[in-house]
Amino acid sequence: MSTLSEQLQNLGLKKLRPSGREPDQMREVRITRNFTKHAEGSVLVEFGDTKVLCTASVDRGVPRFLRGSGSGWVTAEYGMLPRSTNTRSDREAARGKQGGRTVEIQRLIGRSLRAAMDLKKLGENTITIDCDVLQADGGTRTASITGAFVALQDAINVLKKDKNGAMKGDPIKHQLAAVSVGIYEGHPVLDLDYAEDSKAHTDMNVIMTASGGFVEVQGTAEGEPYTQDELNAMLSLASKGIGELVKIQSAALQE
Amino acid sequence: MSTLSEQLQNLGLKKLRPSGREPDQMREVRITRNFTKHAEGSVLVEFGDTKVLCTASVDRGVPRFLRGSGSGWVTAEYGMLPRSTNTRSDREAARGKQGGRTVEIQRLIGRSLRAAMDLKKLGENTITIDCDVLQADGGTRTASITGAFVALQDAINVLKKDKNGAMKGDPIKHQLAAVSVGIYEGHPVLDLDYAEDSKAHTDMNVIMTASGGFVEVQGTAEGEPYTQDELNAMLSLASKGIGELVKIQSAALQE
Amino acid sequence: MSTLSEQLQNLGLKKLRPSGREPDQMREVRITRNFTKHAEGSVLVEFGDTKVLCTASVDRGVPRFLRGSGSGWVTAEYGMLPRSTNTRSDREAARGKQGGRTVEIQRLIGRSLRAAMDLKKLGENTITIDCDVLQADGGTRTASITGAFVALQDAINVLKKDKNGAMKGDPIKHQLAAVSVGIYEGHPVLDLDYAEDSKAHTDMNVIMTASGGFVEVQGTAEGEPYTQDELNAMLSLASKGIGELVKIQSAALQE
Amino acid sequence: MSTLSEQLQNLGLKKLRPSGREPDQMREVRITRNFTKHAEGSVLVEFGDTKVLCTASVDRGVPRFLRGSGSGWVTAEYGMLPRSTNTRSDREAARGKQGGRTVEIQRLIGRSLRAAMDLKKLGENTITIDCDVLQADGGTRTASITGAFVALQDAINVLKKDKNGAMKGDPIKHQLAAVSVGIYEGHPVLDLDYAEDSKAHTDMNVIMTASGGFVEVQGTAEGEPYTQDELNAMLSLASKGIGELVKIQSAALQE
Amino acid sequence: MSTLSEQLQNLGLKKLRPSGREPDQMREVRITRNFTKHAEGSVLVEFGDTKVLCTASVDRGVPRFLRGSGSGWVTAEYGMLPRSTNTRSDREAARGKQGGRTVEIQRLIGRSLRAAMDLKKLGENTITIDCDVLQADGGTRTASITGAFVALQDAINVLKKDKNGAMKGDPIKHQLAAVSVGIYEGHPVLDLDYAEDSKAHTDMNVIMTASGGFVEVQGTAEGEPYTQDELNAMLSLASKGIGELVKIQSAALQE
Amino acid sequence: MSTLSEQLQNLGLKKLRPSGREPDQMREVRITRNFTKHAEGSVLVEFGDTKVLCTASVDRGVPRFLRGSGSGWVTAEYGMLPRSTNTRSDREAARGKQGGRTVEIQRLIGRSLRAAMDLKKLGENTITIDCDVLQADGGTRTASITGAFVALQDAINVLKKDKNGAMKGDPIKHQLAAVSVGIYEGHPVLDLDYAEDSKAHTDMNVIMTASGGFVEVQGTAEGEPYTQDELNAMLSLASKGIGELVKIQSAALQE
Repeated sequence: MSTLSEQLQNLGLKKLRPSGREPDQMREVRITRNFTKHAEGSVLVEFGDTKVLCTASVDRGVPRFLRGSGSGWVTAEYGMLPRSTNTRSDREAARGKQGGRTVEIQRLIGRSLRAAMDLKKLGENTITIDCDVLQADGGTRTASITGAFVALQDAINVLKKDKNGAMKGDPIKHQLAAVSVGIYEGHPVLDLDYAEDSKAHTDMNVIMTASGGFVEVQGTAEGEPYTQDELNAMLSLASKGIGELVKIQSAALQE
Repeated sequence: MSTLSEQLQNLGLKKLRPSGREPDQMREVRITRNFTKHAEGSVLVEFGDTKVLCTASVDRGVPRFLRGSGSGWVTAEYGMLPRSTNTRSDREAARGKQGGRTVEIQRLIGRSLRAAMDLKKLGENTITIDCDVLQADGGTRTASITGAFVALQDAINVLKKDKNGAMKGDPIKHQLAAVSVGIYEGHPVLDLDYAEDSKAHTDMNVIMTASGGFVEVQGTAEGEPYTQDELNAMLSLASKGIGELVKIQSAALQE
Repeated sequence: MSTLSEQLQNLGLKKLRPSGREPDQMREVRITRNFTKHAEGSVLVEFGDTKVLCTASVDRGVPRFLRGSGSGWVTAEYGMLPRSTNTRSDREAARGKQGGRTVEIQRLIGRSLRAAMDLKKLGENTITIDCDVLQADGGTRTASITGAFVALQDAINVLKKDKNGAMKGDPIKHQLAAVSVGIYEGHPVLDLDYAEDSKAHTDMNVIMTASGGFVEVQGTAEGEPYTQDELNAMLSLASKGIGELVKIQSAALQE
Repeated sequence: MSTLSEQLQNLGLKKLRPSGREPDQMREVRITRNFTKHAEGSVLVEFGDTKVLCTASVDRGVPRFLRGSGSGWVTAEYGMLPRSTNTRSDREAARGKQGGRTVEIQRLIGRSLRAAMDLKKLGENTITIDCDVLQADGGTRTASITGAFVALQDAINVLKKDKNGAMKGDPIKHQLAAVSVGIYEGHPVLDLDYAEDSKAHTDMNVIMTASGGFVEVQGTAEGEPYTQDELNAMLSLASKGIGELVKIQSAALQE
Repeated sequence: MSTLSEQLQNLGLKKLRPSGREPDQMREVRITRNFTKHAEGSVLVEFGDTKVLCTASVDRGVPRFLRGSGSGWVTAEYGMLPRSTNTRSDREAARGKQGGRTVEIQRLIGRSLRAAMDLKKLGENTITIDCDVLQADGGTRTASITGAFVALQDAINVLKKDKNGAMKGDPIKHQLAAVSVGIYEGHPVLDLDYAEDSKAHTDMNVIMTASGGFVEVQGTAEGEPYTQDELNAMLSLASKGIGELVKIQSAALQE
Repeated sequence: MSTLSEQLQNLGLKKLRPSGREPDQMREVRITRNFTKHAEGSVLVEFGDTKVLCTASVDRGVPRFLRGSGSGWVTAEYGMLPRSTNTRSDREAARGKQGGRTVEIQRLIGRSLRAAMDLKKLGENTITIDCDVLQADGGTRTASITGAFVALQDAINVLKKDKNGAMKGDPIKHQLAAVSVGIYEGHPVLDLDYAEDSKAHTDMNVIMTASGGFVEVQGTAEGEPYTQDELNAMLSLASKGIGELVKIQSAALQE
């Protein structure tokens, strides 16, 4: 049975996507560890022209609501440099508050990473993930999560070597990656760039484990509602993309 | 073929849910229109003990980015009264900022309602939806959206009668309702109350049209990742619940 | 001797007030206890179309300046739902600060309730009163205080039953109610609704104890200064109104 | 008939007040015009050790809600220098918000001054009153209003000389002054200083016109409720104090 | 050898400066101690028409980062009364944040004063300097520092007399004063007033010790860059001005 | 005549600086243009391990105070990524305000760049410089200014090619660079890294033009005051460093 992209090629629809990619083709993904020197984990993740610096910082101690519980905490913050986008956007620090989109994204990142962990085994340590977008071209939140996992793993490795780190075994239960899928020009596509994202009828972010479990699915109809069949097609593309991302993460972690 | 709840009964598992409800049973839902007198639409929606006041306010004119476009706008704000919950939470107005959860929810409400509308037909009018939780017992965001749709319809009806309202046909494309589903004690259940929500392994909010299209699906693994089968089971329960909600909305709108 | 309203009737001035009320006639007042389920005290108070939800929340412990003093604390917060008014007003949580009017009112509510109490007998407990206006038609601050007293009494009753509550006798020294009076169209009137309030030359809020003591008098000339005689006439009307409110509170508390 | 202070002397109660003042005796009041050089009106007002700098600044134009109405506006802001008090208090500009007390006071000042004016005659000009407390010893709000009136008059005089000022006659309808009264150690006293204010059972601020009309009465029971007789006694003392303040204002304005 | 001002006079350039001052002539400087009564140090400093109230407030204890270190802390806050300037500026407390210029100045004041002290000898005490500009005519930051030093010395003297003050010797290492210099109309001038400051090509603030050491030099080209020769000429003028200021400080401290 | 570093070598003081650099030796400086793709100018500047991304963004129009003046505007914002430093610092956007140090630095950057320009020739365009520190190791503000100048030049070149850009000739009057100098272990040194900066007795930032004019000199005594001789020695080192930086800028601009 031919793939959707093969069928499209048969029909002569070679330019479905602005980038010329196949519907099920990810952008080139690069993961650079130790991009900066101070953080316990520091990863530059690139999904094509989308570039996000993900750092993981370890602090002893936990927020008040966990003190004495023996459990650790993982939280995330997200930001875009003002000119990471085509038009300069206001600096949130200067405006005095984080926008709704920022808040939504950083909550998603933190929640996903915590779902991949056994916080009890982390001991009373806090790991703060910072995802700062240096250059945006669509998919910053999925790139952030994919890079953040690698930074988190590096930080955990630092903690493992620390005899006073109070870890109680490996707190990472699942390897985690994220990718966007959507309905673009009526067709399901994988890993939308900005040109696609801004025109897609449906935009879905999927966060999965290496073993294929769903950690978060967020699918939003921008124009028309989507059907169960479209949902299934998108999940299937996402699963393919996650498989590739997991391999790239693993390769980076073995360097 | 027997339903899941019948199978459970056969197994003698009568007390799966704290409330004694069947897995596919919604709480009692009540929709009271004209709950307050000033707003163009004012709806008290109750999902069991969850009570939300949804108002729709019409203003002539649109935000700057739409001026002159001929298009209208729908936006939403969400709040919880400080003691709508079991333990009093800080008043956001006194703290000086809305929390991340609030921001996330009000963005969801606004986005969903806009997806149900043809904003061009609304003309340069803005409708602001306020969802204020008087009493919380789980599912405040899905109750909010379900009630907000009715308040929105009432406000549109007011605009329709207004000869200067600049409407260009019926801007409502889809009837919309929302419900939560989840995996509780290993079983998919419909319309989680607080006792379930706080212990569910997976929590999913589903927003659908009366004709069965998906407008938003947000499924979060709180503990373990969920499988494709679990996802499908949850979507199936959601579809059943949305069917019931749509009927209750329609009945209320015909009173 | 004939009352002022009788004298007015004799003069054929039947339509002094927009509502058709007599000058010394209160709106219908309703007090509904246990309006919501979580708070120790939860009261819906209605002065005609003005509807305020007053909750009283008990917390162990006191603010820093009272720690170790053995004394308790009572504080209040006030808010209006954005569309409780004829025109939607900004949500204070979204604007990031409470307006001056809000601050002024919540300080008044807290100060009055504290004046009715012996905080030493409360022990080191804090009671937070939340007054949230669901629908506004004038007199929201006086309705708030009148309802808040009942919610406070209910919360104190909960504390009385709590063996660890650290109470040292009944902390309520005075039953308290509040009413507005004013000079409308040149005549003193009791319990102004919005139609009157927005045109009154003088607006006075009076908070009194059941035994007739003054706790707070705030009389503001909106247009022309008022005389000692007008002041006395207003205080006299207020005294009559407080007498009726105290009875309604007592009846509600005995249900 | 002997005065209250004479009666007290007869009883040998010579040291009722910490300052040694008679119950009906004001502190020494000084009004210095042109205290700083930039403002249209600049007045240092001293009630004993309470020292407030009141400036009145004229701006052409009015806030949006008045544009095109032909009417002017008067507004006030109030602040305390951080070490104007015995213990340093936080600088509100550094904390990022004005406290509730500040908001309450500046609303009182602005409201009172507007009640003394015919804003229509002011034309579309805005006068901003700034009352900044250099040294506090009780009664800062009443000193502020008393000084602000003189600064306002000076600013009006500047506008009168301005041919382009758009004034339409004298906008000042009433001369205005303010004084505090209270129940201290069971006795009504005039013009409370900090030593009295911090221990008074009742604290009342009275704002009156030169012709004896009430503009604002705010009487608060700090401990026990007060009676109608006590209220009358306080108003009587206030009336005496206002009479003296009005003379001092007039004398200062004629210098 | 003739001075620069003598040379200018020889050239007939008598009106170089708007004020008629010589290039190396300071404005009249006055220092009034005990200007207000509550603060441990309270100084009104006047550089001509620039008037700043500097208070020094002593608190036991230090900020968290110094607790247990045995070392004290000195910090400063700066503000301008809204109408201290020719045109009224917004009240920072009402705007909800301090402007950039304010932040820059208060950091400079605090940093300079700390550089003059041995904080170890201060013991775990915090001294907060408040510099509030009552009237501005250029040079408010240099007047602030010059006055703040005197207020600081007064506060230290209070601490010296306090047996429980935990001081460990005299914490003041250097007497400190500050003055502005600049290039005005092509000539170096000392102690710029507003008329000069607003037109100067270069503006330099110099903070020196009584013994001639530099604590801070901040020289900014407003128009054209300045040369090493101009820099040296400005520093020379500053040194002369500091010498005079130090004498005025010392005289004030001996009163 | 031997240089200071030669003299030191003669004395056997080979390890004065932690990095092993000579006293007058800069770190390796790299300037990478077009580091990101969206901004009109985008420069990564590296002073050793200090890495700052400087972007220049062009907007048509100017702030309100310049509208209609025909003049342009240049402004700057500065930020540090939370983990650009050894210990993670709070994200300013999350805290809700920029810290004092940030405000101080971004004002310095903007002021310096404006001093290098003829804003009249820029026409009514605004250029916003963003300096975001990816990795910090001392000297972030001087690296920022040095890199920002190159980004600014690139943005000006974009404007030059734009026929509608309203430029009136080359607005850049001076090439600008910045470097830090200080007194470390008693010796003047050039271009302090963090290890030196944190222990230096004096820290001076010098901003100069390619032709040797001073644009800004800010010299702060951290411990002991510094002498005129030390000031001169530091300025001499700065002049040498600026000469090198200007060459590196020019080389980068010719690539």
